[in-house]
Amino acid sequence: MPERPAPSPALALTLGEPAGIGPDIALLAWEHRAALELPAFFVTGDPACLRACADRLGVPVVIQPCTPEEASRLFADVLPVVPAGPVVTAQPGAPDATSGPAAKAAIDAAVRLVQAGRASAIVTNPIAKSVLYSAGFAFPGHTEYLAHLAGDATLRPVMMIWSPELAVIPATIHIPVAEIASRLTTELLVETGRIAARDLERRFGIARPRLAFCGLNPHAGEHGTIGREDEEITRPAVAALRVEGIDARGPFPADTLFHAKARAGYDVVIGAYHDQVLAPVKTLAFDRAVNVTLGLPFIRTSPDHGTAFDIAGTGTADPSSLIEALRLARRLADVDRAALAAASVERVPA
Amino acid sequence: MPERPAPSPALALTLGEPAGIGPDIALLAWEHRAALELPAFFVTGDPACLRACADRLGVPVVIQPCTPEEASRLFADVLPVVPAGPVVTAQPGAPDATSGPAAKAAIDAAVRLVQAGRASAIVTNPIAKSVLYSAGFAFPGHTEYLAHLAGDATLRPVMMIWSPELAVIPATIHIPVAEIASRLTTELLVETGRIAARDLERRFGIARPRLAFCGLNPHAGEHGTIGREDEEITRPAVAALRVEGIDARGPFPADTLFHAKARAGYDVVIGAYHDQVLAPVKTLAFDRAVNVTLGLPFIRTSPDHGTAFDIAGTGTADPSSLIEALRLARRLADVDRAALAAASVERVPA
Repeated sequence: MPERPAPSPALALTLGEPAGIGPDIALLAWEHRAALELPAFFVTGDPACLRACADRLGVPVVIQPCTPEEASRLFADVLPVVPAGPVVTAQPGAPDATSGPAAKAAIDAAVRLVQAGRASAIVTNPIAKSVLYSAGFAFPGHTEYLAHLAGDATLRPVMMIWSPELAVIPATIHIPVAEIASRLTTELLVETGRIAARDLERRFGIARPRLAFCGLNPHAGEHGTIGREDEEITRPAVAALRVEGIDARGPFPADTLFHAKARAGYDVVIGAYHDQVLAPVKTLAFDRAVNVTLGLPFIRTSPDHGTAFDIAGTGTADPSSLIEALRLARRLADVDRAALAAASVERVPA
Repeated sequence: MPERPAPSPALALTLGEPAGIGPDIALLAWEHRAALELPAFFVTGDPACLRACADRLGVPVVIQPCTPEEASRLFADVLPVVPAGPVVTAQPGAPDATSGPAAKAAIDAAVRLVQAGRASAIVTNPIAKSVLYSAGFAFPGHTEYLAHLAGDATLRPVMMIWSPELAVIPATIHIPVAEIASRLTTELLVETGRIAARDLERRFGIARPRLAFCGLNPHAGEHGTIGREDEEITRPAVAALRVEGIDARGPFPADTLFHAKARAGYDVVIGAYHDQVLAPVKTLAFDRAVNVTLGLPFIRTSPDHGTAFDIAGTGTADPSSLIEALRLARRLADVDRAALAAASVERVPA
């Protein structure tokens, strides 16, 4: 008789910047857990911060400190919180000296739990980099810190913005347009393509992911007449990936790559830079786009917005992106789990 | 008793590159004129070329050479053609020595007619620049040639891509990404904004057009931390336009400027470069986007696609963009006409 599989651990949702909208949207998402059939999650962070937030928003909820293992069972009735970090004194919209340590401790705890198999995946609420920097945080952002915690210096995390309509990866991100052409290299595109192909296969369960590369220049350079980069940088990257057996395509003109019919022809677009691919995905799915970090040894998603200090504590923050992030994290964790189970079955002698 | 106003002249539709899909889509649009309630148009070009095209496509149509004045009356029953240019010997997909002269003569005729008040507006079918160049054509493209024919060396035509959902103007167009930052100037943005504001008011009938400027860099430069251009080039342009009484706004991050809620806040987006604004508009309205040239002394629209030599003559070309171009040209001509009539009434002494 086959053993009943152990229940899948809950998702770990970090508190995020406590003075931002993270606590608000966590509560708002939880409040609609039944109607939305949300996957079970627990928050890592200061339970008192969430209690104060619930009182402020008038959400009738028990904030229940617990272990990660208890979370799945508790989730239907209370908001499970795995305590982490200092007591928060920051108020909505007004981060203070407890903000940085609280945000960091919530991430640390979530990573420890997912690494120990006590959480299925990490969903991170927004942090405020400037607040963290002033607290001595030495990483450019969330993603780099997660890679550091993952403990592998060779990791190159890749940001994908995912929505049901469209998934995109910008090969370069927060750099001035004047620097894009000099920062874009064949190596960067090949590495990005490899990570995308591997994670789309392993975590999204896509058998042979189709990667569509945007040209850097208008009309993908029109055969080299509008800049040489598409022939000299992007085309060789696509060719190199194909040699590795990856279904890479392009370079395609970006302007004709995002309408419905074109979207049926690929699983992800790898663009040369930020606005080239972020503008189309947010045109289509502004409230529902989710940030997924590929290339990490664990699953991490996050809502695709910031701390929104100006509306924190008002109850007007929209939890849609967090809700999609939770759903996607669950879906990826289930694919991962099924793949692991299949692999382990294959290893059992008949 | 007020005089009955003279009927509005028909639209002049150029033949375009005769070996491209121009003749096909002209016929396909005409074929559905009644169901689509298309505005009356006549084609400028070689009637025999259209006859051969109709035979090839099996469109039962009389190709009727006529004067521009006869076109409106004839349009319901036949395809009116104002003969222009040489007899075409080019075949679908295979331009020849008659292609360039035929395409050019069709444009020349349409411009003459609109300048003489014998056509309401010009709608241009796609041309093939390389074909025209080899025929000695000395202009970078369609638009520059139209400005030349307009006879005013100070004209600076501005390309707007219009759709019911979104209208956009790229301040720079077919240049490599590496050159964008050095080509973008405050003067260029101010001039573009002025032309956009004037034509949106006069031709689109928008009382006080709202112009939203995209930042050049990701997140509009994040207060100068991702490139200085948005503070030093774009922001001063917006300020200068506001001093002139133009409702200019921004710079805004491009990635959050194109979703439905954001679109309600402006009439046109002026972007820094091609893909930044063309990708979103074609994401939303791929088949229906129309190219409108602002800043000319006459109205000119065109379908937003090329000659598509590979499908010319097959009947599979999609006339949707041409149809939208015809409709928009009619709408703009009617606004223009109403404004002129109002102005002339104002001038009549009581």
